[in-house]
Amino acid sequence: MKIRVFVTGGTFDKDYDEIGGTLTFGDTHLPEMLRLGRCEVDVSVRTLMMVDSLAMTADDRAVIVRNCLTCKESRIVVTHGTDTMVETAAALAAGVPGKTIILTGAMVPYAFGSSDGLFNLGSALSFAQALPPGVYIAMNGRHFVWDRVRKNKDAGVFEEI
Amino acid sequence: MKIRVFVTGGTFDKDYDEIGGTLTFGDTHLPEMLRLGRCEVDVSVRTLMMVDSLAMTADDRAVIVRNCLTCKESRIVVTHGTDTMVETAAALAAGVPGKTIILTGAMVPYAFGSSDGLFNLGSALSFAQALPPGVYIAMNGRHFVWDRVRKNKDAGVFEEI
Amino acid sequence: MKIRVFVTGGTFDKDYDEIGGTLTFGDTHLPEMLRLGRCEVDVSVRTLMMVDSLAMTADDRAVIVRNCLTCKESRIVVTHGTDTMVETAAALAAGVPGKTIILTGAMVPYAFGSSDGLFNLGSALSFAQALPPGVYIAMNGRHFVWDRVRKNKDAGVFEEI
Amino acid sequence: MKIRVFVTGGTFDKDYDEIGGTLTFGDTHLPEMLRLGRCEVDVSVRTLMMVDSLAMTADDRAVIVRNCLTCKESRIVVTHGTDTMVETAAALAAGVPGKTIILTGAMVPYAFGSSDGLFNLGSALSFAQALPPGVYIAMNGRHFVWDRVRKNKDAGVFEEI
Repeated sequence: MKIRVFVTGGTFDKDYDEIGGTLTFGDTHLPEMLRLGRCEVDVSVRTLMMVDSLAMTADDRAVIVRNCLTCKESRIVVTHGTDTMVETAAALAAGVPGKTIILTGAMVPYAFGSSDGLFNLGSALSFAQALPPGVYIAMNGRHFVWDRVRKNKDAGVFEEI
Repeated sequence: MKIRVFVTGGTFDKDYDEIGGTLTFGDTHLPEMLRLGRCEVDVSVRTLMMVDSLAMTADDRAVIVRNCLTCKESRIVVTHGTDTMVETAAALAAGVPGKTIILTGAMVPYAFGSSDGLFNLGSALSFAQALPPGVYIAMNGRHFVWDRVRKNKDAGVFEEI
Repeated sequence: MKIRVFVTGGTFDKDYDEIGGTLTFGDTHLPEMLRLGRCEVDVSVRTLMMVDSLAMTADDRAVIVRNCLTCKESRIVVTHGTDTMVETAAALAAGVPGKTIILTGAMVPYAFGSSDGLFNLGSALSFAQALPPGVYIAMNGRHFVWDRVRKNKDAGVFEEI
Repeated sequence: MKIRVFVTGGTFDKDYDEIGGTLTFGDTHLPEMLRLGRCEVDVSVRTLMMVDSLAMTADDRAVIVRNCLTCKESRIVVTHGTDTMVETAAALAAGVPGKTIILTGAMVPYAFGSSDGLFNLGSALSFAQALPPGVYIAMNGRHFVWDRVRKNKDAGVFEEI
């Protein structure tokens, strides 16, 4: 079973820039994370963009939809910032029928010691293999159908609606 | 959806004993790992034993089977040493019908910086929610039906047979 | 030998705020770091402020000087942001005679996996025990007399002048 | 100021062998640790051996003494297992006059998340720069003259005698 991973940025991939003292984007940590997880799933990773999801435009979403639509894999994981993950999930549900697409992310950057990123990646790859076609968000060990979930910004968790 | 986690030891939970300079078992790291993963699944953890799976006896396996059989949850994750994980999976398949049981573990102790444990835990909890009744091994981001898997001890990975 | 540690903030103690997605100050990591280092030096830690050193005022510096002057210990470590560490060192040199004072900090927050903080703390505590009275900056494994050092902001290291 | 680092093994450099499930020695972590500490001291590292200090022989100690004696640097750090660190310190005190030699190690392998190694390395390099000629042990943030220290094996710390 082949899984395509599209990287779009988000907290997941934020790095600490030690010269500027700020959080920035460098290269994705996905390959390093797959190595750490001793992942033996047939995964191919492609970075589509590297943005904070609050800065994601309609054009950016169109790029994500087009890539999910045209790639040959029918099981896809999209790493994404949590703030507008639900919005991108809706765009994917409207534009990409018949595939299992899992959006995931992290509350704390992978590069931080206390990140939930590795847990979420293991979870997202597993749901991508086991769930029927549809668009889902996988966070906090749970999965949600795209139109029955919201981010609770006060608690920092995703919850069913 | 409620998931029961039974802890049995294995590499997953090995600690470094700084007085003796050896690897030992202390308390399980499961609660800490669930916290790190910001896990919001309704999970209840119970430690059944804390042993190296090479030292696991038929009696130990009977304890695991009995607990999986009698607990009220129908979705179960068992953390287990990798060396005899397949053997315990067979015992569970023979003794516990109608439940989704996922065995998982780690190649490197969670307490080590380079552990695959958090990835595997995210994976196992997700497969436990998404797969139909049966006994499975979840390692390396993959899942295997209990009687179609072996550990490749040279490569340190699980593979289909 | 007793060492006083005064905490003033800086990159050293920055945390990731997972709700806001920003870097903030929480409690100091000093006690946790001393525990990790199995530190057996007689150290007492006091937080004077928790600020980015670019935001440090003349009043803040007066507070640091007064505390170094009036505390009973003659060997002191001050954790401090790197951007104005040299300026505070000058204030301490002018205001606190006869004590060994070591300023140190970090280029990457301790809470990040890749921090230099623990290395710098081990270094600063050691220089505090071994150097004669004076005001020094301990960074990058080196020590500099307060008026013969500058931060090279492009390279992110301290260098002799 | 140039510092020579001689690596001899010990807990410091122990790794987890995920195939065998045991602690072993691979390559030294020193270069990685110096990079993490953003170390700008002029350090040259040479591995003399990679052994558990309980297995260290009189011949091994003779190799360490000879290397400390003949190297051109007068400031030296030796990484070493803690169990016989005091014994090697005595051999160095007898055989290498006029140099500042610091022995250091770790209670927990560097590769473990909870290691004291980075703290001890920062400490040892600093004492190597600041102390007068002599042979010292630097552990737990403290330094001890070679003939006034013992390892308290119950507490896992070094203490003055």
